[in-house]
Amino acid sequence: MPSETQTPLRAGIIELAVGEPDPALLPRDLIRAAAGRALADPGDALLSYGSREGPARLREAVARRAATTEGLRQGAGDLLVSAGNSQALELTLATLTTPGDVVLVEDPTYHLALGIVRDHPVEVVAVPLGDEGIEPDALEAVLAGLRKAGRRARLLYTIPTFDNPTGVSLAGPRRRRLLELATAHDVVVVEDDVYRELAYDGAAPPSLRATDTSAPVVRLGSFSKSLAPGLRLGWIDARADLRERLAGAGVLESGGCVAQFAAGVVGRVLESGDYDAHVALLRRTYTARRDALVRALREHLPAGCRFAVPAGGYFVWVTLPDDLSASELLPRAEALGVSFAPGARFSRHGADDGLRLSFTLYGEAALAEGARRLAAAIGAAAAHAG
Amino acid sequence: MPSETQTPLRAGIIELAVGEPDPALLPRDLIRAAAGRALADPGDALLSYGSREGPARLREAVARRAATTEGLRQGAGDLLVSAGNSQALELTLATLTTPGDVVLVEDPTYHLALGIVRDHPVEVVAVPLGDEGIEPDALEAVLAGLRKAGRRARLLYTIPTFDNPTGVSLAGPRRRRLLELATAHDVVVVEDDVYRELAYDGAAPPSLRATDTSAPVVRLGSFSKSLAPGLRLGWIDARADLRERLAGAGVLESGGCVAQFAAGVVGRVLESGDYDAHVALLRRTYTARRDALVRALREHLPAGCRFAVPAGGYFVWVTLPDDLSASELLPRAEALGVSFAPGARFSRHGADDGLRLSFTLYGEAALAEGARRLAAAIGAAAAHAG
Repeated sequence: MPSETQTPLRAGIIELAVGEPDPALLPRDLIRAAAGRALADPGDALLSYGSREGPARLREAVARRAATTEGLRQGAGDLLVSAGNSQALELTLATLTTPGDVVLVEDPTYHLALGIVRDHPVEVVAVPLGDEGIEPDALEAVLAGLRKAGRRARLLYTIPTFDNPTGVSLAGPRRRRLLELATAHDVVVVEDDVYRELAYDGAAPPSLRATDTSAPVVRLGSFSKSLAPGLRLGWIDARADLRERLAGAGVLESGGCVAQFAAGVVGRVLESGDYDAHVALLRRTYTARRDALVRALREHLPAGCRFAVPAGGYFVWVTLPDDLSASELLPRAEALGVSFAPGARFSRHGADDGLRLSFTLYGEAALAEGARRLAAAIGAAAAHAG
Repeated sequence: MPSETQTPLRAGIIELAVGEPDPALLPRDLIRAAAGRALADPGDALLSYGSREGPARLREAVARRAATTEGLRQGAGDLLVSAGNSQALELTLATLTTPGDVVLVEDPTYHLALGIVRDHPVEVVAVPLGDEGIEPDALEAVLAGLRKAGRRARLLYTIPTFDNPTGVSLAGPRRRRLLELATAHDVVVVEDDVYRELAYDGAAPPSLRATDTSAPVVRLGSFSKSLAPGLRLGWIDARADLRERLAGAGVLESGGCVAQFAAGVVGRVLESGDYDAHVALLRRTYTARRDALVRALREHLPAGCRFAVPAGGYFVWVTLPDDLSASELLPRAEALGVSFAPGARFSRHGADDGLRLSFTLYGEAALAEGARRLAAAIGAAAAHAG
């Protein structure tokens, strides 16, 4: 039974709605040891005002890792430390948009990112997401329509790798096409890359940022999934002109890097080599959990349901038979002891024919039991509707 | 010789421009012990997603302290944890202003706060600061002028206690008048209260927030001065309706409290009782440093210079003889081995007849020597001008 999640867990319900890590997998000892080393070193500035960019130790370690895993030739100077992807997205919107701008989002998309976008005086336009990620033809049509109306999109927020909520990754050819469209229309692509380390079937696809370093991309990387969300720590890897605009924000000049303390600690974790071992543990554990959930869904889901096996990340997306609404299904499922996140939560248009299941919080047996309960709820709802 | 400051220190120059704490006074051991306790406790959620409001343990400790020191009857539910005052100011501006709003600032004021305000599509209007803090008559005139023009001010940013840059505190009667004006004109007072713990001549004046809890006040408290700036940790104490608007920001829903990790650590520091002892050490040390600087200024400054002795905080503000410009004086002073922050840096109007000296970074002997060098530079400049 997981404990100390952000979302309170209800007794008797397997909460597959909750997209949080298993608290038992949080690397308390690694972080405790790293904090001890950093604080014992009088030359470590983690308690002082820092630079806008954040501690060089951490940025160097992240750049080294990107060189190894993605072939990116970067140094510390190419990166900014962020206080996690939410703060980074907030900073990006605050810095790169002006009132009245159009911001494009995928539909469905990460619902809490929508909340951040909505805090800004911009117009949100949705672009459909398909089985292979964002639909380039639809994107091109939206961009052309805006241009015809004398407007243009300023930003596109996308999660191209192991998407939240759908688990899909943008196919390789679509990555190229997306970057060509963004370059042609001068749209900044905000690439939320938070799930990259959690790849279960070989390496993650190359990031948009690594695919074309001359394209207008702001990539948001994070330690929330690979270490611990409470660290509220990530980094921003953007084309130089965009990175400089972000680094110029007044909030970073005033206090320095918002995550100075956590960055000082995590810089030590990355240097130690413990990070690689921890990520390997997460991959093994979550691969087994994904497989357990997928097996049980295959076995139990009634006809008419569809899902794709995600190659990484936190989520499986199940599409329901045509006549079922996920939001209406939810109370029935909870009565049978399982929860999920209904599709309407992630859609600008209220599209509600899908649901999101998280496989990181529970062990394999609970996931399989959750899938059985879900299947029973769908079966009962379909019988009732039929 | 201080080390590991944010601003690089130049050899041979006593850098009284630098408003940073003495690194030797950063409580590394306290924080290391607290981090160890928090991370060893599997029930502590400092590594998990947290609530929007931040860890209750820290908020309870802050509320208890406000009860003791200010007689405020508060609980954890009255406070939000912030990632330091810069982030809190950014959040306040993003949440409580709309494009085109008027934001009032003092003149002079904390220059880096001006940078944060300028990132928002608001109009900045300055209100003069006098020897007893913001001038209420001038404030009333500005408010009346705006009203006459069919506009109104949305926010006033003020540092009423141990001001940066001037060191002055708003006099008691002016506090009441300011709150009456803010209430009458429905202007939110953003009270930057970062220096409260550093009181050298008895207790700090009651905060605006404590003076009238029904007034529209958002108080920003911080551990940057009382523990360590690199923690990037503070809290927001605002009237309930304002607090709820701030807590509703999308960035807090998405990731939870931005400073979850540091808040988990500092909650343990406050519970331990070590915090009181550390604040007492800071007060003793900085009182002696202030006194050393003030003694040397009294002894050496040439006629025509004025300064007031600050009752707390980081800074002494020196007003120059009429014909001298602080910015023009600066290279001469640096040639003599002392720096300061010239007045123009803090003024919307470029007012340059004053300069800011920080007395927290250096020991007493260096401060006295810095004052001698400054006096020599002023004397030489006055002779040159005369």
